[in-house]
Amino acid sequence: MTEAIRVVVHPSHPWGVPESLARVPGVEVITPPDLDSLSECLADPRSEILVSFIWTDECLSVGLRWIQSIASGLDYYPLEDLAAAGIRLTSGRGANAPAVAEHAFALLLAVTRRIGKSVRYSERALWRQGMGFELVGKTLGVLGLGTVGEEIAWRAKAWGMEVIGTKRRPGSYRGCASRVFPPEETVEVFRRSYAVVSALPHVKGAPPQVGAAELAALGDGWFVNVGRGSVVDTEALLDALDSGELRGAGLDVTFPEPPPQDSALWRHPKVVLTPHLGGFSPEYADRLADIFATNLRAFRGEGEWVNLVV
Amino acid sequence: MTEAIRVVVHPSHPWGVPESLARVPGVEVITPPDLDSLSECLADPRSEILVSFIWTDECLSVGLRWIQSIASGLDYYPLEDLAAAGIRLTSGRGANAPAVAEHAFALLLAVTRRIGKSVRYSERALWRQGMGFELVGKTLGVLGLGTVGEEIAWRAKAWGMEVIGTKRRPGSYRGCASRVFPPEETVEVFRRSYAVVSALPHVKGAPPQVGAAELAALGDGWFVNVGRGSVVDTEALLDALDSGELRGAGLDVTFPEPPPQDSALWRHPKVVLTPHLGGFSPEYADRLADIFATNLRAFRGEGEWVNLVV
Repeated sequence: MTEAIRVVVHPSHPWGVPESLARVPGVEVITPPDLDSLSECLADPRSEILVSFIWTDECLSVGLRWIQSIASGLDYYPLEDLAAAGIRLTSGRGANAPAVAEHAFALLLAVTRRIGKSVRYSERALWRQGMGFELVGKTLGVLGLGTVGEEIAWRAKAWGMEVIGTKRRPGSYRGCASRVFPPEETVEVFRRSYAVVSALPHVKGAPPQVGAAELAALGDGWFVNVGRGSVVDTEALLDALDSGELRGAGLDVTFPEPPPQDSALWRHPKVVLTPHLGGFSPEYADRLADIFATNLRAFRGEGEWVNLVV
Repeated sequence: MTEAIRVVVHPSHPWGVPESLARVPGVEVITPPDLDSLSECLADPRSEILVSFIWTDECLSVGLRWIQSIASGLDYYPLEDLAAAGIRLTSGRGANAPAVAEHAFALLLAVTRRIGKSVRYSERALWRQGMGFELVGKTLGVLGLGTVGEEIAWRAKAWGMEVIGTKRRPGSYRGCASRVFPPEETVEVFRRSYAVVSALPHVKGAPPQVGAAELAALGDGWFVNVGRGSVVDTEALLDALDSGELRGAGLDVTFPEPPPQDSALWRHPKVVLTPHLGGFSPEYADRLADIFATNLRAFRGEGEWVNLVV
């Protein structure tokens, strides 16, 4: 029988991840309680595999050979350094996709159906009716038709919406959206849509792709962000809500996170804000463990890597 | 050319109803501003048709021949009196169904995805993560598989849920639910479901169909009510949230409405409360006008009535 392989899990991780990983055969899971003990643990030459949610400098150790990211977005990983050090990096892409897609609709429906406003009135024991809006028959724009974007797209289509969107290489798209535009034509997606959901990742150094021009093109619609906060010009968003036609915004991500204490996002009556929990669910950890198990076989030379980034 | 027929619209009505009715050919719409002028208006023998959202005694006038209800539920109409007086009553069934179905999911996702809790934290500028839950692959129970119930059912099925439910006459069911139980077996639907949505109407004199036994059978799931508040034993619901396993409740309807000022429903952290606005949408009025136009032809002897109640 092979000796169990040691897997170090970063102290910051979503619910259930160590438990799900421990169910992968041949694995010994170690979860250091804090960053100091993480450093100690990674200094041990037996620590070749790290499962990490966020990147911290403590993670770059001499013996490390493979990092399985828990998250889908790899915003702060030093990709060049990892490549130079010969450390493989695989992402958690897909594990959170169903949860994020349902969360996108939770936020969209929270603004179209006055959930945010009603909760705020409810806290003051006030019963204030007002207009709700329907999605059926309308057009949803999805920015970033990748794994998460497509999970959003098919749910929208299944509910009787038309779906359009953007993708870096529209020619490679094989999904249910009726029309796909390149990122340079993002404004056109806003112009044609009743509501727009962004599932875009953070791109280092790139200016916000959602600004005043896009929100003006959307007009009296709705905007939701479940990708990364840096994609949106927050001032332009608030301006569209206060002085423009934008009816409401549902945000699971902001830039920075959390928003500054004095940010208008916290208490804006047209905004529903959730604290970047779109990917969380009890099923998430098991799906991540499936990706991990596949990659562990590849690590042992017994199959192909999935979600390989470096 | 026929003279335009006079249609009186009750002063209390959702957004856009008089405008949509006015687009029906051959109709002159009158909208009295208050109940006194409604009485005056209905005293005029030319007032044969009333379009009414709620029932008030002012509505029963001598010349009246047909009432088109704006709402789907007819809780307080004096059906026997209307029948005795030879006044027809047609309901607005179907007009609000897509909006109510989307609202049901807005409430369900508001509890599964922590929208209510997040809005409450957000008002205090607090960023507090916590577990979200997934619907895909789970079982949804729909109480009352009528027009609204079926709109909820197909959306759930399209999102990868299994759907079961109740219907007064299960044998007459022609929809997408995989199993339909009679009302006497409601507890069985709770036992088999991950989340339950009630679309049940008010039944005069009937005890609440959702009480302690049903909520105990549901266990650590979710409950949503978009039908009528009288269907639920509120004390049992609060007890299931506080001392039982129930994870959350989304309510568009309560009994009474609004809840008493000291009701725990207003500020309960596991409750999302909306003020009976599930049926509202800009499209609602046009759909109602379609039903009205069909019934106006029947009123003139040129076709069949739809949604005929009396």
